[in-house]
Amino acid sequence: MRRSAVDEALGLETMGAETAASGPDGAAGARSAVARVEAAYARIAEVDRAEVWIALVPRDVALAAACDVDARLAAGDDLPLAGTVVAVKDNVDVVGLPTTAGCPSYATSPLGRPGPAAVSAPAVARLVAAGAVVIGKTNLDQFATGLVGTRSPYGAVRHATLPDRVSGGSSSGSAVAVALGIADIGIGTDTAGSGRVPAAFNGLVGIKTTVGLVPTSGVVPACRSYDVVTTFTRDLALGALATRLMVGPSETDPSGRAWPADVPLALRAAPVVAIPRDEDLAPLSPSWRDAFAAAVEAVRATGARTVEVDVSPMLTAARLLYEGAIVAERYEAVGEFLASSPPDADPTVAAIIAAGRDVSAADYVADRATLAAATAETLEILDGADLLLLPTTTEHPTIAAVQADPVAINRRLGTYTNFVNMLDLAAVAIPAGEVDGGPFGVTVLARAFEDQRAIDLAARLLGSGDASIVDGGVDLLVVGAHLRGQPLNPELEALGARFVDSVRTSAAYRLVALDTTPRKPGLVRTGDGAPIVGEVWRVSSGALGRFLAALPAPMALGRVELEDGTWVVGFGCAADAGAGGIDLTAHGGWVAALAAGLQ
Amino acid sequence: MRRSAVDEALGLETMGAETAASGPDGAAGARSAVARVEAAYARIAEVDRAEVWIALVPRDVALAAACDVDARLAAGDDLPLAGTVVAVKDNVDVVGLPTTAGCPSYATSPLGRPGPAAVSAPAVARLVAAGAVVIGKTNLDQFATGLVGTRSPYGAVRHATLPDRVSGGSSSGSAVAVALGIADIGIGTDTAGSGRVPAAFNGLVGIKTTVGLVPTSGVVPACRSYDVVTTFTRDLALGALATRLMVGPSETDPSGRAWPADVPLALRAAPVVAIPRDEDLAPLSPSWRDAFAAAVEAVRATGARTVEVDVSPMLTAARLLYEGAIVAERYEAVGEFLASSPPDADPTVAAIIAAGRDVSAADYVADRATLAAATAETLEILDGADLLLLPTTTEHPTIAAVQADPVAINRRLGTYTNFVNMLDLAAVAIPAGEVDGGPFGVTVLARAFEDQRAIDLAARLLGSGDASIVDGGVDLLVVGAHLRGQPLNPELEALGARFVDSVRTSAAYRLVALDTTPRKPGLVRTGDGAPIVGEVWRVSSGALGRFLAALPAPMALGRVELEDGTWVVGFGCAADAGAGGIDLTAHGGWVAALAAGLQ
Repeated sequence: MRRSAVDEALGLETMGAETAASGPDGAAGARSAVARVEAAYARIAEVDRAEVWIALVPRDVALAAACDVDARLAAGDDLPLAGTVVAVKDNVDVVGLPTTAGCPSYATSPLGRPGPAAVSAPAVARLVAAGAVVIGKTNLDQFATGLVGTRSPYGAVRHATLPDRVSGGSSSGSAVAVALGIADIGIGTDTAGSGRVPAAFNGLVGIKTTVGLVPTSGVVPACRSYDVVTTFTRDLALGALATRLMVGPSETDPSGRAWPADVPLALRAAPVVAIPRDEDLAPLSPSWRDAFAAAVEAVRATGARTVEVDVSPMLTAARLLYEGAIVAERYEAVGEFLASSPPDADPTVAAIIAAGRDVSAADYVADRATLAAATAETLEILDGADLLLLPTTTEHPTIAAVQADPVAINRRLGTYTNFVNMLDLAAVAIPAGEVDGGPFGVTVLARAFEDQRAIDLAARLLGSGDASIVDGGVDLLVVGAHLRGQPLNPELEALGARFVDSVRTSAAYRLVALDTTPRKPGLVRTGDGAPIVGEVWRVSSGALGRFLAALPAPMALGRVELEDGTWVVGFGCAADAGAGGIDLTAHGGWVAALAAGLQ
Repeated sequence: MRRSAVDEALGLETMGAETAASGPDGAAGARSAVARVEAAYARIAEVDRAEVWIALVPRDVALAAACDVDARLAAGDDLPLAGTVVAVKDNVDVVGLPTTAGCPSYATSPLGRPGPAAVSAPAVARLVAAGAVVIGKTNLDQFATGLVGTRSPYGAVRHATLPDRVSGGSSSGSAVAVALGIADIGIGTDTAGSGRVPAAFNGLVGIKTTVGLVPTSGVVPACRSYDVVTTFTRDLALGALATRLMVGPSETDPSGRAWPADVPLALRAAPVVAIPRDEDLAPLSPSWRDAFAAAVEAVRATGARTVEVDVSPMLTAARLLYEGAIVAERYEAVGEFLASSPPDADPTVAAIIAAGRDVSAADYVADRATLAAATAETLEILDGADLLLLPTTTEHPTIAAVQADPVAINRRLGTYTNFVNMLDLAAVAIPAGEVDGGPFGVTVLARAFEDQRAIDLAARLLGSGDASIVDGGVDLLVVGAHLRGQPLNPELEALGARFVDSVRTSAAYRLVALDTTPRKPGLVRTGDGAPIVGEVWRVSSGALGRFLAALPAPMALGRVELEDGTWVVGFGCAADAGAGGIDLTAHGGWVAALAAGLQ
């Protein structure tokens, strides 16, 4: 499940490697921001895909921004995204550019969003503050209503490598800009699957966080209760980094949500992954079923256990997005504008949104109650599972087929995506091999705020390195029974603790064997010991509190000095227990002492 | 602000004292459950207030239940509410009884809730499981729509002691049943103030928790997004105990919310309490303003600092409950039933709810967005304040006045209550002296999930003992700089820590002076020390984690043995620091050591 032949056909290996180098390590890699932006414009000219863009930043303006990034970097600024090239879906504000949402007159009408944006959406501003350079606004299914990429007066966005097929939508242009190797990060939005379906079709990673984590201010709403700003990237590490930077409360977004105090920071090593029953996969052709079966095998190969669950209640809830009262949210967003009969309205989109006009509030309230019940039922279905794996979509249609039947195919494409935001799940769409000559994709779904678990499984499937989207947490040193492979390590995993590093303490500590069950060592700061081997795990503050609350005597937690001079929270023990134990310091660590035959 | 002359006029001192005895200490006091239920029925006969009740449990049935409680208690069951007499508003299900919501035909119509309830609402079932005995279902403003207590075909509920005045509503019968000394706990519901306004009029405590904490399953919705099940009690301790028992997730309530991992467990000793500006009190007569000013003085007398804030954005948001699209929630709940023109519909209520029929979903979605923004603005207004104090209502009208003008007066009564649930605030309504010959009441408001802070200020104002509505938390022993009056105690207060008790450790510990700034002692378990004085504080697991994460070397936290043989999380220190300190054990504690001149 690493890079597919399709990706390789795009000739992106070099750029992919550079992107990785510009990732979490915080440096811009070998090339300057200016060089990267120049390459992006060269690639735009090379691929000749005008339909991808609604507005391009003039090359000299983007180069000036890149020049500024290089200067800031040279001055020592911390710019983790320095020189990263960003394409922004044109329903998200970028300062100085109009926001058309795929409808040119929307950017001039007094009923729309007339004039250029005065400020960038926080999601964009945060990337730019980290050194990214925005090169343009991308095409989309008008008003982010569609999963196909064909519903736009700017033209249907063709697939990156299979130009007779759809790109997927609604975030069509952002996905293709990344798949073509123009942009490193494509900013999308996702209400019904718009950040996932195009990822599947184009062999990309699409990260759709829990609703509310990334501010949606500065975004033209599709359904304001369920809209999420997303990323498309060719590799997981860069998408995760961008997501981590975008997440967080904004005073401009009153509906935002923050990570809870006990947010899990990792997926356990051997998780349980729920998968759908055969009958839940009925919309898939045999070749698509085979591709999904291969993805399930790949999940098992990571050490996960899979369990079949009945996902039909979720698939049923999905219908409420377009067939129920929720569509009124689309009318609330842009219905009045569309009622003015703009000549550039997409007829399919306009018809969908017009249907939201006469929905009664009472029906909407009833549908919301139904969704609350379905959300609770979903949590029951997932009880005992860490994650859920689904195909991202059902098929990869041609543009001609979609144009001949603009609604039914689009509806099928949302089978496995439409319910996700309404049922408060997080999702990471990833490439998973090929099917019918194009990319195949699966989505890893997690409970609300357990996004990191989905990221971690995605990383294992893709062979990526560590990719963390949750900022913060507390580093905790363990030296004994909580080490990996030791009997109490599952306690850390259950708390969502994330392995950070193997370390050694400073030489101020002695390690002694305590009289406990299971056997545990005590770390005793005497000033005259030796470096002791341990592991640093990162936990949320809520998890740390639960861990301490359950810790039995004589164990204790306090500051421990590491070999590199830093101090982290770590294990100690009560003085009398430490004084009475057998000294193991000479072994240098607990595992070595056990190996030496400690009884 | 203790018991008013009005309360005393009710002759409830004895019963009040008994109720207190049956409170948090977990025993039923001197009298058996049977005796208490017998007294309740005797009081019902004595007061001759038929309009309070929609259905009374037959005396012999209630006595059988009480008998069972006495038997379970004798068998050693833990029944913290043993023998507590409960009256339940008739929009909340009690097994075996019909639920009329104040409209008899609703309990028979196929469009309503025909037949007796098959199970009790979780809120009721939890009280009964704790030994409470339900004696009947109480009158209400029909469909919980009103703040007056006059909108019922079962008759206007007269005020407990001023029978020409309204009781307040919509939870009219439950409040008056408690005020008359019949029931110990009245169960109400509160969407617009129905659990607070009747408390104010009748000199009671009304606890309205954060939306979602108490399950609302088994409740006829008024506005399902904002309904809260509440308690009326004559004293805070019993209300808090009942609330603590009612709070908690239920699998029958998919919209429920739980305490967050970092829930605050206490109000700081010297809090900041926001109060409205003079102009925000414009609806009050001079005598009501004086009564509120006296309450503000009483707040200051508890050691709080008051700060004036502009609450007009909240008062403006209040209008959205009836004048905006939110009224559609009422139509969603019972509109179809009322559209069948039941003969016993209250005309005022029916007109209000009918207005929700033609509201568009788009308008509803827009109003919800307005409320989200108003909620964010409210949090900004309250920034820096622990709590907000407001008059509970504006005036105490006569029944005749309300019947002459059934809408305008009702609307004024909700001035300070209508916005509270929509803006996600918790509230505790408490008696605060008298005004115009009747009880006066104020409400203490807190941010969502900070309910305990409001309870704590209410307890200080009422002179109540400890009243905690949050179950759980971790006990933390402090022995040095975090003790009350010591320099780091504010750290505990900022974490929402709750003082539990002054304690001593077992004799296994020695106390030593560490070389730290500020000066701190270290508790060292040597096995040959002496009991050391300390304090136990209760904190949430999230707060404990944050506390540990910020703890500097050489301090540590682990299990410490108390004098009574229990073990709690408590302070220790690194071994070398402990070994090197001056021994203070002979002083028995840090404060004594400081007093003895430790430098």
